[in-house]
Amino acid sequence: MKNKKNSGPMWAIKSTNLSQLNLRYTSDRDVTALPMADEILTPYDIQGTIAHVKQLNFIKILKQTETNKIIKSLKKAYKLHQSNKFPLNPDLEDIHMNLEAFVSSKKECGQQLGGRMHTARSRNDQAATAMRLYMRDMCLQIQSALIKLVEKLLIKGLEHSSVLMAGITHHQNAVLSSLGHLYYSYAQSLIRDIQRFEEAFDVINVSPLGAVAGYGTTWPLDRNYSAKLLNFDDVLSNTIDCVTNRWEPEAELSGAICFMMNHLSTISQDIIFCSTSSNPALQLPVEFTTGSSVMPQKRNPDFAEATKGRTALIHGAHSSLLSIGKGNVSGYNKDTQWTKYLIMDTINTAKDAPEIFENVINKIKPNKERLFQQTQEGFLSATDLADALVREGKIPFRTSYLIIKEITGQCKDVIDYENFSSVLKKHDSKIKFSKELFEQVTNPSKSITLKNHNGGPAPAAIKKLKTKLSSKLNQLIKINKKNKLKVKNALNF
Amino acid sequence: MKNKKNSGPMWAIKSTNLSQLNLRYTSDRDVTALPMADEILTPYDIQGTIAHVKQLNFIKILKQTETNKIIKSLKKAYKLHQSNKFPLNPDLEDIHMNLEAFVSSKKECGQQLGGRMHTARSRNDQAATAMRLYMRDMCLQIQSALIKLVEKLLIKGLEHSSVLMAGITHHQNAVLSSLGHLYYSYAQSLIRDIQRFEEAFDVINVSPLGAVAGYGTTWPLDRNYSAKLLNFDDVLSNTIDCVTNRWEPEAELSGAICFMMNHLSTISQDIIFCSTSSNPALQLPVEFTTGSSVMPQKRNPDFAEATKGRTALIHGAHSSLLSIGKGNVSGYNKDTQWTKYLIMDTINTAKDAPEIFENVINKIKPNKERLFQQTQEGFLSATDLADALVREGKIPFRTSYLIIKEITGQCKDVIDYENFSSVLKKHDSKIKFSKELFEQVTNPSKSITLKNHNGGPAPAAIKKLKTKLSSKLNQLIKINKKNKLKVKNALNF
Amino acid sequence: MKNKKNSGPMWAIKSTNLSQLNLRYTSDRDVTALPMADEILTPYDIQGTIAHVKQLNFIKILKQTETNKIIKSLKKAYKLHQSNKFPLNPDLEDIHMNLEAFVSSKKECGQQLGGRMHTARSRNDQAATAMRLYMRDMCLQIQSALIKLVEKLLIKGLEHSSVLMAGITHHQNAVLSSLGHLYYSYAQSLIRDIQRFEEAFDVINVSPLGAVAGYGTTWPLDRNYSAKLLNFDDVLSNTIDCVTNRWEPEAELSGAICFMMNHLSTISQDIIFCSTSSNPALQLPVEFTTGSSVMPQKRNPDFAEATKGRTALIHGAHSSLLSIGKGNVSGYNKDTQWTKYLIMDTINTAKDAPEIFENVINKIKPNKERLFQQTQEGFLSATDLADALVREGKIPFRTSYLIIKEITGQCKDVIDYENFSSVLKKHDSKIKFSKELFEQVTNPSKSITLKNHNGGPAPAAIKKLKTKLSSKLNQLIKINKKNKLKVKNALNF
Amino acid sequence: MKNKKNSGPMWAIKSTNLSQLNLRYTSDRDVTALPMADEILTPYDIQGTIAHVKQLNFIKILKQTETNKIIKSLKKAYKLHQSNKFPLNPDLEDIHMNLEAFVSSKKECGQQLGGRMHTARSRNDQAATAMRLYMRDMCLQIQSALIKLVEKLLIKGLEHSSVLMAGITHHQNAVLSSLGHLYYSYAQSLIRDIQRFEEAFDVINVSPLGAVAGYGTTWPLDRNYSAKLLNFDDVLSNTIDCVTNRWEPEAELSGAICFMMNHLSTISQDIIFCSTSSNPALQLPVEFTTGSSVMPQKRNPDFAEATKGRTALIHGAHSSLLSIGKGNVSGYNKDTQWTKYLIMDTINTAKDAPEIFENVINKIKPNKERLFQQTQEGFLSATDLADALVREGKIPFRTSYLIIKEITGQCKDVIDYENFSSVLKKHDSKIKFSKELFEQVTNPSKSITLKNHNGGPAPAAIKKLKTKLSSKLNQLIKINKKNKLKVKNALNF
Repeated sequence: MKNKKNSGPMWAIKSTNLSQLNLRYTSDRDVTALPMADEILTPYDIQGTIAHVKQLNFIKILKQTETNKIIKSLKKAYKLHQSNKFPLNPDLEDIHMNLEAFVSSKKECGQQLGGRMHTARSRNDQAATAMRLYMRDMCLQIQSALIKLVEKLLIKGLEHSSVLMAGITHHQNAVLSSLGHLYYSYAQSLIRDIQRFEEAFDVINVSPLGAVAGYGTTWPLDRNYSAKLLNFDDVLSNTIDCVTNRWEPEAELSGAICFMMNHLSTISQDIIFCSTSSNPALQLPVEFTTGSSVMPQKRNPDFAEATKGRTALIHGAHSSLLSIGKGNVSGYNKDTQWTKYLIMDTINTAKDAPEIFENVINKIKPNKERLFQQTQEGFLSATDLADALVREGKIPFRTSYLIIKEITGQCKDVIDYENFSSVLKKHDSKIKFSKELFEQVTNPSKSITLKNHNGGPAPAAIKKLKTKLSSKLNQLIKINKKNKLKVKNALNF
Repeated sequence: MKNKKNSGPMWAIKSTNLSQLNLRYTSDRDVTALPMADEILTPYDIQGTIAHVKQLNFIKILKQTETNKIIKSLKKAYKLHQSNKFPLNPDLEDIHMNLEAFVSSKKECGQQLGGRMHTARSRNDQAATAMRLYMRDMCLQIQSALIKLVEKLLIKGLEHSSVLMAGITHHQNAVLSSLGHLYYSYAQSLIRDIQRFEEAFDVINVSPLGAVAGYGTTWPLDRNYSAKLLNFDDVLSNTIDCVTNRWEPEAELSGAICFMMNHLSTISQDIIFCSTSSNPALQLPVEFTTGSSVMPQKRNPDFAEATKGRTALIHGAHSSLLSIGKGNVSGYNKDTQWTKYLIMDTINTAKDAPEIFENVINKIKPNKERLFQQTQEGFLSATDLADALVREGKIPFRTSYLIIKEITGQCKDVIDYENFSSVLKKHDSKIKFSKELFEQVTNPSKSITLKNHNGGPAPAAIKKLKTKLSSKLNQLIKINKKNKLKVKNALNF
Repeated sequence: MKNKKNSGPMWAIKSTNLSQLNLRYTSDRDVTALPMADEILTPYDIQGTIAHVKQLNFIKILKQTETNKIIKSLKKAYKLHQSNKFPLNPDLEDIHMNLEAFVSSKKECGQQLGGRMHTARSRNDQAATAMRLYMRDMCLQIQSALIKLVEKLLIKGLEHSSVLMAGITHHQNAVLSSLGHLYYSYAQSLIRDIQRFEEAFDVINVSPLGAVAGYGTTWPLDRNYSAKLLNFDDVLSNTIDCVTNRWEPEAELSGAICFMMNHLSTISQDIIFCSTSSNPALQLPVEFTTGSSVMPQKRNPDFAEATKGRTALIHGAHSSLLSIGKGNVSGYNKDTQWTKYLIMDTINTAKDAPEIFENVINKIKPNKERLFQQTQEGFLSATDLADALVREGKIPFRTSYLIIKEITGQCKDVIDYENFSSVLKKHDSKIKFSKELFEQVTNPSKSITLKNHNGGPAPAAIKKLKTKLSSKLNQLIKINKKNKLKVKNALNF
Repeated sequence: MKNKKNSGPMWAIKSTNLSQLNLRYTSDRDVTALPMADEILTPYDIQGTIAHVKQLNFIKILKQTETNKIIKSLKKAYKLHQSNKFPLNPDLEDIHMNLEAFVSSKKECGQQLGGRMHTARSRNDQAATAMRLYMRDMCLQIQSALIKLVEKLLIKGLEHSSVLMAGITHHQNAVLSSLGHLYYSYAQSLIRDIQRFEEAFDVINVSPLGAVAGYGTTWPLDRNYSAKLLNFDDVLSNTIDCVTNRWEPEAELSGAICFMMNHLSTISQDIIFCSTSSNPALQLPVEFTTGSSVMPQKRNPDFAEATKGRTALIHGAHSSLLSIGKGNVSGYNKDTQWTKYLIMDTINTAKDAPEIFENVINKIKPNKERLFQQTQEGFLSATDLADALVREGKIPFRTSYLIIKEITGQCKDVIDYENFSSVLKKHDSKIKFSKELFEQVTNPSKSITLKNHNGGPAPAAIKKLKTKLSSKLNQLIKINKKNKLKVKNALNF
């Protein structure tokens, strides 16, 4: 028995089709280190610094040649960072001081020019600017990934609009539904999240640059100029606000992520619930399952559980972000530095989730027999039958409800016509309820088509909803693209 | 010594001007009971039920006369509730079952009609509808109160735009600022919250009615019709989404409240910090302070501390709302019932806060001498002087920074010209820095006018910001009014 | 069709055996108002005040006759409260001021004596004392209820120690287990919670009385005397600590409740998961299920979902309690008043839970066929077979694991001997593995007895664990009883 | 002007005495990467694996020679890890699989022996074991650091027991206190936290090893044997509990950390509040302050703000840990893997805090004049005077309270004898209150000695409290040492 050494997890030794994305998503920080926070921030801080330096030139504090030299040094830093070679010296506290030291050490600048770079700026506005540049980028990336997932759901949902299954309440089979209907509930909720990322972007994409330590400066800054260079949508005018509320765009973004993760955690639990041994209704793509180190037979929906664990972590971080913003006096408080790690960890924990689900939704195989079998468990047609009885018998719903309740007490899982008729007769011998009608109401394939109102599970209703949701999605895609262009063009140095 | 018995708190015996609002806000639930949740929900559930019944009529399930009778009974229930006489029987579980029982007990309806009312509806969509009607109302009420607070801040901030004070970082005097500048930071941040309530309203104001248990119905509902009756902006189409995500509009609204409360908690901490024994810079209106039972001299800023305590409570509730939405399977889960109490408690805890602050901001008296005294503590002009030195000496900021650093090490609280000159001379004897310039930079009243860029503390900059913020505010006021009209007209039964 | 009007929820019209406890637990605040917080506190504040007054007498500040008169008035207040007739006037802010006003209004006391009662006391130590008296009482009550639940689990677990079922990992059938084994995992975890309540009691049951406003007094208090009267275990000496950390015993108690609720939420999810339509393995007592307003057939495990919703609420409150205690300066902060509502809501939300579960565990009926059926799904014996193969074949576990993995790829749900033998042969023709041994390992009833180590699922191991857990439980019961006696005797006025 | 390049933060250029500990604590993750979680776990997993392998030998599953070989390989891994050279291959998912692969690759073992190592074990019990070994170690380390801080507080508090200052309530000067009194409130509260770490240790230090996947094994494990080898205090018997509640010891430890951090955050806020420009009462050791990049004069109490930010982060993580434990079914859930990162981040964020505070408390210099000045602001003697008036005038406290209230309305900051006498006369001309008595009560140095009851601020009371607290502390130190020995001896391979 041969064994390719070190080629993957033990349980996967023979799997050739392991998803690297899934492996990374389920292993997470077990085998992945987290970089220095300011390593992540470096390109954004360079970008913000270039804009600041250009502004200093614009308002005549720096000459054109000086400006060029500083920017040259900054671009060197950027290139080094791109190849993982930019030195972050911990003794210099942060990227901001490291960057100043780097520029000062370049021969084209030296102490003289390096020392001018921080004119009319404080680390307070500098860090706030860099964080916003970073967050708007991440916000759009997650939004894009989420858009792809929703597109997939809209396609697959339509494809599965006739795959019948039990709709559940309280975890129990309740009413007839379909897989398409379920997928469209995911899509509808996730579109709200895409909207939330758009609103978060609007909160984030304003410029704190020029707030300096939080109280402005005697230098004649033109904050609109630097804001424009960075493609911010506006200047965050009052300078105190720029600094006091450094937790706020962070909490705004993490709030949007919380909602998204909750929706994904619901998809997760649905998938877990529908791929158990007793209810193997959804067959997961094998490359998105994982195995056990001791139980040879297992294929576990780890990514789904990982999503729930990640959601819990993100909720806590959101709560911390809010807590940091509680009861601080105005002006800079060092407490807010911890918002940086919280939002970075949140982004790191959430960013791959939409892609995972896009893949899973794409490849999951509904076990149609098992799904249909669900519709035969738990008296799924009871409510529909009660409704039909109201129509046929011209009786109040509550009366009909009680009759059907009595019937279900006498049958097992499905209602048969004989029981139905005899109980009905006992209650009201005048009501006629034909076997044909009975079959129409209790046959899932027929019954589902009756639920054709706005948002209902009928295949036709799903098709109609596709139009509505696609239209909303397309608007959001347009905005996402416009915003991504802003970000890209601003980065273009 | 006479003593009016039981007329108010002991410490207030002689106060004639105690604010009842403040007393209620600081005593809170100590001496206030909380009503049954469904008592709060009653008018909204009646409203939603009327719309449902009208829809049943519209699609011919109920006749016009039947409809009229049911609505007549429902209006009776409403009137009874208005005079606190609507009976909520705990044995009937909730308002929904109580309402059905009430209608069934009225002679114009009886069991027959009462029993028809619940046709094509479940408590799942009924409760979701009533909660949204309740939340949109509360959302707009809080938004209105917040608008008033911001209006007050814009007025008072302008009024105090020349009241100089220390801007602080790390709780320590740092740079020159003004009270107007500080107030405008509050206004600017709270305007974002007004915007958030607008976005929360949009999430809330869609109709789940017709989702029934979450999977639609065989009845030919026209969900657009009932949504229109209730002035919902749209139908929340997919029916599963209507029920699964019952935590979501709740969390959306509570999210907006969290941000608002954080901003108010910062105003609170500023007020606390500026009304201490050693820094009595802001004099609180006596009717918004409270006394001590044992220390006769005390006038405490209780409302400010109460705001922080309330904020902490609201953060926790928000976290609970998110937690309830984590990892639930699709379809109704009873867990979500607890979102009702969480959002109601949140609203109850937050709703008076903006009005409190509107009153306080209106009546607070700046102690101008003490505030000015702040500007003479902690070398407030150090940064401005460093900047001026850069300009005069044509030296890099970092060099200038180090020179000023050395000077502050030799003075106490304020920098004097002699020390300044001698240290400067030591470093670079060629730099000329006139006494006139020195005085311009270090005289707060002159220096402040130099900080005239976008969002800076110069009075002129504050005036300019008023225009920008007022314009944004006015847009939001317009939307708030439009939405309030929607809600009012829909309630008009 | 007759219908007893207003006799209970619609879905329960025919149920005669509805549990009132369950109805209250699942309806919760829908139809239950919450009293004023200080109404709950009243008896405890009276108790604390009597101790304070006796101390004033002990140190000669009050004469014996004065003391008697005040206590007489206080006992009147207590009796009125017992019959819901003690007037809490909201204008007087809180119970403390109300109580002083009440005593002052009694003719035996009047203003003169009433005005002496607050000598050497502040509301700061008064409220802290009353809260600790309240919390220690509640702590022991919940602990007692939890003890009963664990006793039930130990009995029922032993009873069901041979009821085989699938042990799951990742929600999927994994290894053989038994219902008794599962119940004992509940018992073992809940015993830790009983221990936590004991530790919380120790933190709570120390006396802050005499701290006054937080800095002591010039009156020669004997704090040990009053602590002894109230059966506190010790004096919380440093007076600042008594007041600053008013959030701390609250958070300690709520922390213990969080752990308990998490454990109960796991039992909840197990019950939900094992009473679905596709896996009806546990039959709930009908009186602990609820129905649907629209689906006649439904019997929902609402109490279990309610428990999860309640758990989420309690987590948030715990988080709020911690937040209130973050970053406050020493000395009294009004923020801490909100800890009162948070802990009261937490207690109110948690206190019935153990009794609910005691009832459910007592009455739940295992569906033994279905549970056994679980053992035939998902290759439960795969790991055991791999282990046996290691023993028989003298091969490494990892090799055996891979062989069994290959076999499970060729079978469905259970492994049959033929497949097993043929794959085994392919890998290593020398290994002998008899059919007898195969049957011993794969027959659940036989196989389970092999897992007989400390804590394993073998019936003998469960029996052994009963001895260990009972012994630990009995120690805790003894302490609970001793503490309850302390509380009872101290209340004895 | 010369400038040592890259030698530290810009603002610190001239500081020779910068604390590296403080720099690391305030820069935190800005310039520090986080290692892979399983890198941290490696030595503990090796330790647990050695115990497991020895157990396999003890019960005859491995021969002595086999055991020796495996342990030899494991020790190689340990040595490599000690010198940062142990390879963690991300493709192998985690340390557990990496370790098995490593052993299998060593020539003394090979696939044959490496493949036997995992006999009768699953990653479920393996990871749970390693996490407990890690957590108990960390728990004791933090406890030790906290003990040192409390020892320092007890010494310094006694030293400063006559340094008078204002005791505050609601952030306002209220009653006379002393710095020693304040320090003893810290010590008293932190001793409770030391106790909490002891209780957390007891929860953590039980052995899950042998639970395998959660349902035991057919191998005849002797779990007591391996538990003893690792110096666990007991076996965590029921195997399901070992796996289901993997969030629980984590939440227990993080709970203890939350309380400690809250107490440290209060010290932080006190320090911040007493080192402001208007109230520079405490002078921080310069090496524990940081500077500004733009304001040359600043010395900021960053470590104190950092502590509050860290506390907020830790609260959120605690909330996440609880959330992960909510509503999971029994058995292993992948969600719990995220508890590993949460507790590691929590430990990483908290572990240096006690040492920071030990240093600060050791070196902080009280500004005695400013502290004394506090006692002259805000009528600190008002309550004491009211109390003395009760004694002299034989009037009720409430009457006296109102007289003093009137007087404070007529004076500024301190009460003078003339005003006092004239108001007193107006109310009751018969009361005699000598100037001598007045001075005794209003002279802080005399007045403080009167507050000599248990826990009061009188120097004698502080001295007495030292005995009580030291005695409690010494008990805890003894347990800490005993537990550290357990851990050390178990690690001794």
